[in-house]
Amino acid sequence: MIVAKSERLLRMIGGLGQALLSLLFWDTVFVVLYKVFHWTWLGSDSLPLGSFGTIIGIIVGFRNGSAYGRWWEARTLWGAIVNRSRTFARQVLTTLSSEQAAGSQEQAEVAAVQRELVLHQVAYVHVLRQQLRGLDPVPEFVRVLPQQDTSELARTKNLALSIETRMSAQLIAAHKRGWLDAWQWQAIDQSLASLMDSQGGLERIKNTPMPQQFDFFPRLFVQIYCLLLPVGMVSSLGWYTPLGSTLVGFMFLALEKIGRDLEDPFENCIHDVPMTAIATTIEINLRQMLGETELPAPAQPVDGILW
Amino acid sequence: MIVAKSERLLRMIGGLGQALLSLLFWDTVFVVLYKVFHWTWLGSDSLPLGSFGTIIGIIVGFRNGSAYGRWWEARTLWGAIVNRSRTFARQVLTTLSSEQAAGSQEQAEVAAVQRELVLHQVAYVHVLRQQLRGLDPVPEFVRVLPQQDTSELARTKNLALSIETRMSAQLIAAHKRGWLDAWQWQAIDQSLASLMDSQGGLERIKNTPMPQQFDFFPRLFVQIYCLLLPVGMVSSLGWYTPLGSTLVGFMFLALEKIGRDLEDPFENCIHDVPMTAIATTIEINLRQMLGETELPAPAQPVDGILW
Amino acid sequence: MIVAKSERLLRMIGGLGQALLSLLFWDTVFVVLYKVFHWTWLGSDSLPLGSFGTIIGIIVGFRNGSAYGRWWEARTLWGAIVNRSRTFARQVLTTLSSEQAAGSQEQAEVAAVQRELVLHQVAYVHVLRQQLRGLDPVPEFVRVLPQQDTSELARTKNLALSIETRMSAQLIAAHKRGWLDAWQWQAIDQSLASLMDSQGGLERIKNTPMPQQFDFFPRLFVQIYCLLLPVGMVSSLGWYTPLGSTLVGFMFLALEKIGRDLEDPFENCIHDVPMTAIATTIEINLRQMLGETELPAPAQPVDGILW
Amino acid sequence: MIVAKSERLLRMIGGLGQALLSLLFWDTVFVVLYKVFHWTWLGSDSLPLGSFGTIIGIIVGFRNGSAYGRWWEARTLWGAIVNRSRTFARQVLTTLSSEQAAGSQEQAEVAAVQRELVLHQVAYVHVLRQQLRGLDPVPEFVRVLPQQDTSELARTKNLALSIETRMSAQLIAAHKRGWLDAWQWQAIDQSLASLMDSQGGLERIKNTPMPQQFDFFPRLFVQIYCLLLPVGMVSSLGWYTPLGSTLVGFMFLALEKIGRDLEDPFENCIHDVPMTAIATTIEINLRQMLGETELPAPAQPVDGILW
Amino acid sequence: MIVAKSERLLRMIGGLGQALLSLLFWDTVFVVLYKVFHWTWLGSDSLPLGSFGTIIGIIVGFRNGSAYGRWWEARTLWGAIVNRSRTFARQVLTTLSSEQAAGSQEQAEVAAVQRELVLHQVAYVHVLRQQLRGLDPVPEFVRVLPQQDTSELARTKNLALSIETRMSAQLIAAHKRGWLDAWQWQAIDQSLASLMDSQGGLERIKNTPMPQQFDFFPRLFVQIYCLLLPVGMVSSLGWYTPLGSTLVGFMFLALEKIGRDLEDPFENCIHDVPMTAIATTIEINLRQMLGETELPAPAQPVDGILW
Repeated sequence: MIVAKSERLLRMIGGLGQALLSLLFWDTVFVVLYKVFHWTWLGSDSLPLGSFGTIIGIIVGFRNGSAYGRWWEARTLWGAIVNRSRTFARQVLTTLSSEQAAGSQEQAEVAAVQRELVLHQVAYVHVLRQQLRGLDPVPEFVRVLPQQDTSELARTKNLALSIETRMSAQLIAAHKRGWLDAWQWQAIDQSLASLMDSQGGLERIKNTPMPQQFDFFPRLFVQIYCLLLPVGMVSSLGWYTPLGSTLVGFMFLALEKIGRDLEDPFENCIHDVPMTAIATTIEINLRQMLGETELPAPAQPVDGILW
Repeated sequence: MIVAKSERLLRMIGGLGQALLSLLFWDTVFVVLYKVFHWTWLGSDSLPLGSFGTIIGIIVGFRNGSAYGRWWEARTLWGAIVNRSRTFARQVLTTLSSEQAAGSQEQAEVAAVQRELVLHQVAYVHVLRQQLRGLDPVPEFVRVLPQQDTSELARTKNLALSIETRMSAQLIAAHKRGWLDAWQWQAIDQSLASLMDSQGGLERIKNTPMPQQFDFFPRLFVQIYCLLLPVGMVSSLGWYTPLGSTLVGFMFLALEKIGRDLEDPFENCIHDVPMTAIATTIEINLRQMLGETELPAPAQPVDGILW
Repeated sequence: MIVAKSERLLRMIGGLGQALLSLLFWDTVFVVLYKVFHWTWLGSDSLPLGSFGTIIGIIVGFRNGSAYGRWWEARTLWGAIVNRSRTFARQVLTTLSSEQAAGSQEQAEVAAVQRELVLHQVAYVHVLRQQLRGLDPVPEFVRVLPQQDTSELARTKNLALSIETRMSAQLIAAHKRGWLDAWQWQAIDQSLASLMDSQGGLERIKNTPMPQQFDFFPRLFVQIYCLLLPVGMVSSLGWYTPLGSTLVGFMFLALEKIGRDLEDPFENCIHDVPMTAIATTIEINLRQMLGETELPAPAQPVDGILW
Repeated sequence: MIVAKSERLLRMIGGLGQALLSLLFWDTVFVVLYKVFHWTWLGSDSLPLGSFGTIIGIIVGFRNGSAYGRWWEARTLWGAIVNRSRTFARQVLTTLSSEQAAGSQEQAEVAAVQRELVLHQVAYVHVLRQQLRGLDPVPEFVRVLPQQDTSELARTKNLALSIETRMSAQLIAAHKRGWLDAWQWQAIDQSLASLMDSQGGLERIKNTPMPQQFDFFPRLFVQIYCLLLPVGMVSSLGWYTPLGSTLVGFMFLALEKIGRDLEDPFENCIHDVPMTAIATTIEINLRQMLGETELPAPAQPVDGILW
Repeated sequence: MIVAKSERLLRMIGGLGQALLSLLFWDTVFVVLYKVFHWTWLGSDSLPLGSFGTIIGIIVGFRNGSAYGRWWEARTLWGAIVNRSRTFARQVLTTLSSEQAAGSQEQAEVAAVQRELVLHQVAYVHVLRQQLRGLDPVPEFVRVLPQQDTSELARTKNLALSIETRMSAQLIAAHKRGWLDAWQWQAIDQSLASLMDSQGGLERIKNTPMPQQFDFFPRLFVQIYCLLLPVGMVSSLGWYTPLGSTLVGFMFLALEKIGRDLEDPFENCIHDVPMTAIATTIEINLRQMLGETELPAPAQPVDGILW
C-alpha cells in the first residue's frame, strides 16, 4: 500500500509512463502526417467519440467499483482476522486453567499450552500472508516456533489449514484433561471456525479473479479510444493535437489503471493490502498479552510502500 | 471460467462474431444504397442517437451490475461451502470419539463412521455441482462411495438434500451411542444447517433468472441502435461508415454481452463458476485430513477454461 | 414470473401498447399541424431535451435499481423460507424421539406429532403466499390438514402467525414429555424464529411501497418528455417525426415500466415472485422426507407465466 | 407516509409551489428585460449548462440514494422490532410456566407476569415512536399500563431503555423462581438484546443527519442552476423562455426535494416512516396472543397520510 | 460534525476560499492576456471539456460514495458500541449476584464489582475515542477511575484492548466465585467479543486510508480541468470568463472536497464522527443505570461543531 505522500505524483504517473510515451509518439506522427504530408482524409469531426466515452465510462466505472469492493473486502477480512486473533488469545489466556494448586506440575503445563496456542496463532497469520502472496510459508513458521517439528507440516498443501487443525486438536485435548469446560471449549471453537471463514474468503478473492471480460474489454476500448483521439481532434487543434489528445488519453488510461491495480490485492506488488504490517500488529498484540517485553517493531513503510 | 491469458482476444470477440458480420453486412448494404444508388433520404443527422446511447448505457449498466452480483454471490456461496466442508471435517475428526480403550471394537467403528461422514461430504459437493449443471449426479456419488447402496438415493428428486439428511441421521445415532456430547452435536448440526443454507442460495440463483425485462429490452435496444447507426453516420463518414458504425456497434454489443454471459453462472458453459475445480479442492483438503496420500490432482484449465 | 421465451416480444411490448398508440397519435397530429397547416412555431430546436433525458435517466435508473432490490430481497426471503422449512423438517424427523421401546404406544404418538408438525409447516407456506397475495388462506390450510379444526384459526387476523404459535406450543409440549432435550428444543425454536423473521420481512415489503415520489415523478417526467419530443424533432425529421419520436418515447416508457413492474412483487400479477411454485417445491421436499410417495406435481408455467 | 393515490399530483407539486412561483417570476422579469428593454447582453448561448447539469445530477443522485437508504434502513429496523416483539411474546407465553398444579396461587402469578411482560412490550414500542418523534412518551405508557407507577420512569432520560431494563429484571426474577430454565432465559434475553440493537440503530439515524455538505451543496447548485437557466435559453426560446426554463427548473427542484424529504424519517412530518401504524399492528398482534378480544383498530390514513 | 444551520454557507465555502481566489486570479490573468494583449491563440472552442467532465464526474462520484460509506460505517460501528455498552451494563447489573443473604459481606463485594465493571466500560469508550484521534487516552481513564493504578496500563500500546482484557479477567473471577453461571458468563463474554469486533472495525478505518489513487487523481484532474476552463470559454464569454469559469470550477472543487472531508472520520477535525458526544451519551446512560444522580451534561455543539 502506498503511504508516502511526497513523490507520489511521479510514482503514480510513472506506472503509466510507457503508455503515455507511446501515445505521444502516435499523436505526433499523426499530426505530422496531417499537417506536413497533408493527409487530410485522416481527420474526421464526426467520429462519435462522445458515445465511445460514455460507454467506456460506464464499463470502467463499474469495473473500478468492483475492484475497490474486492480490495476493501480483503482488508475487512484481514480486519476480522485481527479481531478474532485477539479474541482467541484473550479466551485462551483467561479461560484455560487447572484446578490444581498454584505451582503444581499441571499449572506449568497449562501455562505452556497457553503459550504454545498463542504462538501458533501468531505463526498462522504470518503463514497465511506468505501463502496468499505465493511465497514459501515454512520459514515464517520456523521463526515463530523454532522448536516445532516442521517435516510433517511442510508437506501439506495448505499449511495454514494444518496449523488450525493442530490447534483444534490441542483444544480438544485440553478439554479432555478438564482445563476447559464445554462452554469455554465451544466459545474458542467458534473463534477458530470464524478464522477459517476469513481464510476461506481471502482464498476466494485470491483464486477468483474478476471475470476476464471486465478486464479485457475496458483495456481494449481505452486503447481504441486513444488511437482514435487524434482523428477527431486534429482538424480543430492542429499542431496542439499531441498535447490535447495525450492529456485526454492520460485521463482515460489513469481511470482504467486505478481499477486494475486494486483488482488483485495479494499479488506481492505495491498495491497489496499491507498484510505484513497487519500480521506484525497481531504479533505485537499477542506477544504483549503473553507478557513478553521484547516485541518486534511495527512494520515501517519501505520507500513509501507499506507491505 | 476463462483463465487463459493468451488467445483471449479471439475467444472474446469470437462470441460476437456472427453479430458483427451481420452488422458489417448491413452497414455495407446501407452505404452502397446511399452512395451508389443515391438514396440520400436514408441519412439523417438529427437522429437522437445520443439520447439512445444514454438510455442504453443506464439500463445495460444496471443489468451488468446485477449480473455480476449474481455471479459473485454464487462464487461466495461456493466459498462458504468450502469453509463449512473443512469445518465439518475438522469437527468430525476431532470431536467424534469413544471412551473405550484404543484398539477396541468401538474405536474401529468410530473411525469408520468418521471416514464415512467425511466421504459423504466429499460426495455431497460433487453431487451438488452436477445437479446445478443439470447433469446426472449419481455417477459422482458412486465414484466417491462405491460400496454404498444407491438404489434408494437415485430415486430422490434432490440427491444432495438426501445425502445431508442421511448424514444428519448418522450424527444423531453417534450422539445416542455417546460418541458426541450435546455441545459437539450442536456444533456439527449448525455446520450442516449452514451447508443447507448455501445450497438453498445456489438453487435460488439457478431457479430464478434475471427478470426477463432486463434481458429482453437491453438486447432489443442495442439491436435497434445498431440498425440506426449508419443512418446517423452515413452523411458525414461516407464510405467509412461500415468501419465507424461497426466499431461503435461492437462496443455496444460487447457491453450487452458481458452481462448476459455472467447472468446464469451454472449453465455448463465457459462462463460458469468453476465448480468442478472448487469441488476438487474440497476433495483434496478433506482426503488429506483423512490421512490419505493418493490425492486427486487439482483441476487444470482445459483449453483455457477452468470448469 | 414470465418464463416463456417465445412470444415474449409481444407480451412485453403489449403492456405498453396503449401508451404507444396514444403517443403515435399525438406525434401524427403534431406533424400534420406543422407540415400541412404550417404552424411552424410549434417546432423548436433549442429545447433542452438532453438535460431532460439525463435527469430522467438518473431518477428512473435509481428507481429501477431500488425496485429490483425489493424484488430480489423478496425472492431471497422466500429462499430462506425454503432452507428453514427443510431444516425444520430435518430437525423434527431426526431429533424428536421417545425412549420407549419400538412399537409402543408412545412411539406411535411421536410419529404422529412429527407428521403433524411437518404438515403444519407445509400448510404454513401455502397460507403465507395466499395472505401476501390478499387471497383467502383458509382453503389451503384445509387442503393440507383436512382433519384440523379451523373455526378458531379462521378468526385470527394473521393465520400464518397463528400456525407458527401453535407449532411452538406443540414443541414445548413435546419437550415437557421428554421427546426433545433442551438443546434440540432450542435448535428447533431458532428455526421457528428464523421463519418468523423471513415472514416479517415479506410483510414489510408488502406493506411499505416505494415512496410515492419515486413512483410519481418518473412517470410524470417521462410523460412530459414524450409530449415534448416532437417539438424538438419536427423541424429536422419532418414527416419521419412520428417514427423517430415514438421510437425514442418507447425506450423511455419501457425503461420506466421495467421498474414499476418489479416494485411490488406480491400483487397477484404476472410479475410476481413465483410463490406458488416455491411453496409447491417445499411441499414436495417435505412430503418426500415424510416418506410419502404420492407427491404433488411441480408447478408448471401457465401460458408462459410461473405463479 | 403518503398513501392516497388521488390528489397526489397537487400534494407533490404543492410542496414545490413557492419555489416554482419565484422561479416563474424571475424568468418573466428576465425575458421582459431581454425582449422589451433589449438588454441582449443578458443572454449567452455558451454557458456550460450541460456540465452543470451533469455535476448536479451526480451529486443529487448520490444524495437521493443515500437518503432512500436511510429511510429503508429505518423501515427495516422497525420491521425487526415487529418480528422480535412477536417472538418475545411467543416465547414468554409458551415457555414461562410453573411446576405447580393448575389453579394454584403460583399459576395465577405466572399468568400475571406473562401479561405484564407482554403489555410492557406493547408500551415499549409506543414509547419508542414518541421518543423518536420528540413527543412526550409518558401518556402512551400510562395508556397501556395504567396501574403502573410512572413517577420514577418519567424522570429517566431514555424511557424506552428503562422499560427494557425493567423487563430484564422481571425475567431474572422469574428465572430465580424456577419459572424459566437457563435455556429459555437465554433465548428471551437474546430477543431483548436484539430489540435494543434495533432501538440503537433507530437512534443513530435520528441523531446523525446526512453530512451537511450533501444537504447544502445540492440545494445551492440547483438554485444557481435555476437562476442561470434563462440566461442560456432566452436567445433561442424568446417569449417561451419562462415556460421552458420553469419546466426544466421544476425537474431539478423536484429531484432535489425527493431526497431531502426522505433524509430524516422521524421528523413528525408527512414523509415519516408510519411508526404509529406499525406500533398499532404490534399492539393488535400481541393483545390477540394474550387472548384479548377488544382490539384497537388498525391505524387508518388521515387525509391520505399514514402516520 | 457540523450541526449549526446558520452561517454554514460561509463555513462551507470558506474551506474552498483559497482555491477559489487562486482560480479567480488565474481566470482574470487569462482574460486580460486574451482581450488586452490579444493572445487569441489561447482560446480554443474544441477542447473536449465535456469528456473531461464526464470522466471527472465518474471518478469523483465513486470516490465520494466510498468516502460516505467509510464515514457511515464508522458511525454504525460507534452505534454498535452504544448498543453493546448498554447491553453489557444491563447484563452485569441484572445477572451478577450472590447467593448470600442481603447485607452480607459478599453482597457488598458483588455491588463493588458491578460498579467497577460498568465504570471500566465508561472509561473504555472515552479511551477508545482518544486513541482513534491520536490523543493521549490516559487522562480520560484517570478521570473515570481515579483510584485505579494506571502505571501498568499506561505502558501498553493499545490501552482500550488492555481494559477489555482486564474486564474479561474480572468476569472469569466472578464466574469462579459463583456469582455468574456458565450461561450468564457466556452471554457477557459475547458482548465483550462484539465490542472488540467494533473496535477492530474502527481501527481498520483509521489505519487504512482510501487507496491513494482515488485521492490523488480526482484532485489532479479537477485542477487540470480548472486550468483549462478559461481556454474553452474565453472566446464566447469574453470579459465574463472569470465569472463563468470560477462558478463552474467552484462546483467541481466543491464536489471533490465533499468526499475528501468525509474520507477519514477520526482526524480530530470538524468533519469527525462526533465521538465525544457519543461517548458522553454512553456515560450518561451507564451512570444512570448505576443509580447515580449527578450526571455529566450531554455534549453541546461548540461554535456549531459537535465533537
